Amino acid sequence: MDHLAHVSNQPNSQPQSQISHLALDIGGSLIKLVYFCRYDDSCRDDDELRSQNESLGSKSDNSRPVLGGKLHFAKFETSKINDCLEFIHSMKLHLSGFHDCTAPSSDKIFIKATGGGAYKFADLFKEKLGVSLDKEDEMECLVTGANFLLKAVHQEAFTYLDGQKEFAQIDPNDLYPYLLVNIGSGVSMIKVDGDGKFERVSGTSLGGGTFWGLGRLLTKCKNFDELLELSHQGNNRVIDMLVGDIYGGTDYAKIGLSATTIASSFGKAISDNKELVDYKPEDISRSLLRMISNNIGQISYLNALRFGLKRIFFAGFFIRGHAYTMDTISVAVNFWSKGEAEAMFLRHEGFLGALGAFMSYEKQCLDGLTVNKIPQRFPISVSSAGNKIYCSMTGKSNDNESIECTVYGT
Amino acid sequence: MDHLAHVSNQPNSQPQSQISHLALDIGGSLIKLVYFCRYDDSCRDDDELRSQNESLGSKSDNSRPVLGGKLHFAKFETSKINDCLEFIHSMKLHLSGFHDCTAPSSDKIFIKATGGGAYKFADLFKEKLGVSLDKEDEMECLVTGANFLLKAVHQEAFTYLDGQKEFAQIDPNDLYPYLLVNIGSGVSMIKVDGDGKFERVSGTSLGGGTFWGLGRLLTKCKNFDELLELSHQGNNRVIDMLVGDIYGGTDYAKIGLSATTIASSFGKAISDNKELVDYKPEDISRSLLRMISNNIGQISYLNALRFGLKRIFFAGFFIRGHAYTMDTISVAVNFWSKGEAEAMFLRHEGFLGALGAFMSYEKQCLDGLTVNKIPQRFPISVSSAGNKIYCSMTGKSNDNESIECTVYGT
Repeated sequence: MDHLAHVSNQPNSQPQSQISHLALDIGGSLIKLVYFCRYDDSCRDDDELRSQNESLGSKSDNSRPVLGGKLHFAKFETSKINDCLEFIHSMKLHLSGFHDCTAPSSDKIFIKATGGGAYKFADLFKEKLGVSLDKEDEMECLVTGANFLLKAVHQEAFTYLDGQKEFAQIDPNDLYPYLLVNIGSGVSMIKVDGDGKFERVSGTSLGGGTFWGLGRLLTKCKNFDELLELSHQGNNRVIDMLVGDIYGGTDYAKIGLSATTIASSFGKAISDNKELVDYKPEDISRSLLRMISNNIGQISYLNALRFGLKRIFFAGFFIRGHAYTMDTISVAVNFWSKGEAEAMFLRHEGFLGALGAFMSYEKQCLDGLTVNKIPQRFPISVSSAGNKIYCSMTGKSNDNESIECTVYGT
Repeated sequence: MDHLAHVSNQPNSQPQSQISHLALDIGGSLIKLVYFCRYDDSCRDDDELRSQNESLGSKSDNSRPVLGGKLHFAKFETSKINDCLEFIHSMKLHLSGFHDCTAPSSDKIFIKATGGGAYKFADLFKEKLGVSLDKEDEMECLVTGANFLLKAVHQEAFTYLDGQKEFAQIDPNDLYPYLLVNIGSGVSMIKVDGDGKFERVSGTSLGGGTFWGLGRLLTKCKNFDELLELSHQGNNRVIDMLVGDIYGGTDYAKIGLSATTIASSFGKAISDNKELVDYKPEDISRSLLRMISNNIGQISYLNALRFGLKRIFFAGFFIRGHAYTMDTISVAVNFWSKGEAEAMFLRHEGFLGALGAFMSYEKQCLDGLTVNKIPQRFPISVSSAGNKIYCSMTGKSNDNESIECTVYGT
């Protein structure tokens, strides 16, 4: 990575117009990137253009001026941060930051960043890319990102139960309060009362890092997605101790526990007859996923109940749009609330923090993404200075691909 | 075990006076036994007699007639149920049940039993010991056992924080409502409003079976106690991802998370650099114990909060009087309640269900353990027929030993 150092003193050597406003969310397991490419830049290809035009034709309000660009999303494992630095360098994303407008003579470039890694890796970014990380509060970014998605993006939130995905109509005027559950390495639970109005009310250390950490130790899986994929074919009843296992096959009906209810996660593994090698990785993965998803669903519900919150939105990269994960969380919320609460998911689940950091550029003296005219649809305010961003998005953002996203502005 | 069968048709061949009223709690992992021995029986030895006399001298109310006997406690792994059957047979405990008083001519012997195994293993008890299991509801027995201990037994409940054990003075007239958290293979959380008045309001599948099941798969430990013991020497920071690991060593002070707070249990194990064999079993044990104890503490607190319960009593064989387990649960309750709630523990933690089953003999037409005169101290009502048992206990009941317990009566 030392070869990157030579660019660190040439922050103005590339045109700023092509890519602007890289933002980072550097978590314990993953680094999430959001960056904006204008249409006339190198990020654009024919396929993207076509889908963009279709998107505009079908969804846009023609009265809105198109700034012309797309939001791109990418992720890297935090342990492979050098790959991330290489990517940023090769795409020249690091040149898209902002200068300190209070010190016009300074050529210091700032990149918006959130998550613990914004602190941990600040020196590394300075050393390798010559940029300073302008740190934004993690919870604030998550909330800003979630509010943005829920207010600005069509068909962002959905329910998932028994394999059925159903998009929810969210009235932006009736959004608050809600509980935001962000499942990264660990889990944060945030009561959101409005733009910038929130409180982290709870959390749990049993999160995505626990699933992948324990999963790595217990199986030979090489990565998180492989472990998640394996769970499809697994049967948790092999390792979990069910109510029926204790009650000789019958329910414990008096307190509403069916024979198939999990009494003790991994409880069958107490048996002397089997060692780790005797269990199939897919069964282990399934039990782990249920244990963690169910636990998150339960604690989330208890916190929603505590504060009288009727909506719980689950986000974070743990979910990855995975059907069984969402189903388990939904069932848990449904079970513990006796049908009174419902889990909802976000299509752009993994990028809330990065989006929030991206939107915090509005607080700076920028000219790129702001608009003066307020469109009718998808308004969202992110700026204390009155500047606004308007977006319309479709598609998935679960992987390292740009998503069909249009930024409107002047 | 087939050799036991020969006694099954001779239920009256032994005198009933020596041992009376065996009761069982057959859970997913452990079978708990409570049985009563009169002073003139074979269960008594000189040491026991001496401690008994000391106990009487120091604690008893001399005006109370002494029925003369002791409560004994024992446990077996459910997977080794044959050992349990052997023990019962060798001690002739199975002959201490009761006959159906509505059918005086029947020589069918009933033993009080609770837990799922009372259903699962009913045929086995009939076949091997010739006794029928008279099934009592599991939650009801836990509550009866807990109420009995909390009202009748001196210095039963205590707090444990920072290595300090402090006995709590419980006013029997100000006991209810409270939350009872029983940590067996799985965890039940019961709101207790009075004798026989309760509701199982929550629970979690992450319990003792999870600690031992995952622990067995991840370490070479041979039993639960070995795994628990190992945790003493372990350091959870080796495997858990701390806030400081994400934030580069600093706190996330804004939301009250110190650098040493666990952000993600087992989150460091996502690293490619280490395999299972590279982690020390003691570190794994420590992380597991913290994960499960902290989770139980958190969910318990949320349920106590939900119902406005100021006291949370933790029981069940998971705890085993283990300092670090109690400390973790206490810290969790303290952390999540911001100091407003307190975890309490029970000295006879593992035998609530078995004690409750034992006390349900009162509902039958028995003559042994009932008294007509009500002593001043430690009264507890367990019978709809107005019969009562009075006990005074001291000592530990964490292992297969009888405890210093006197039953008063006529």
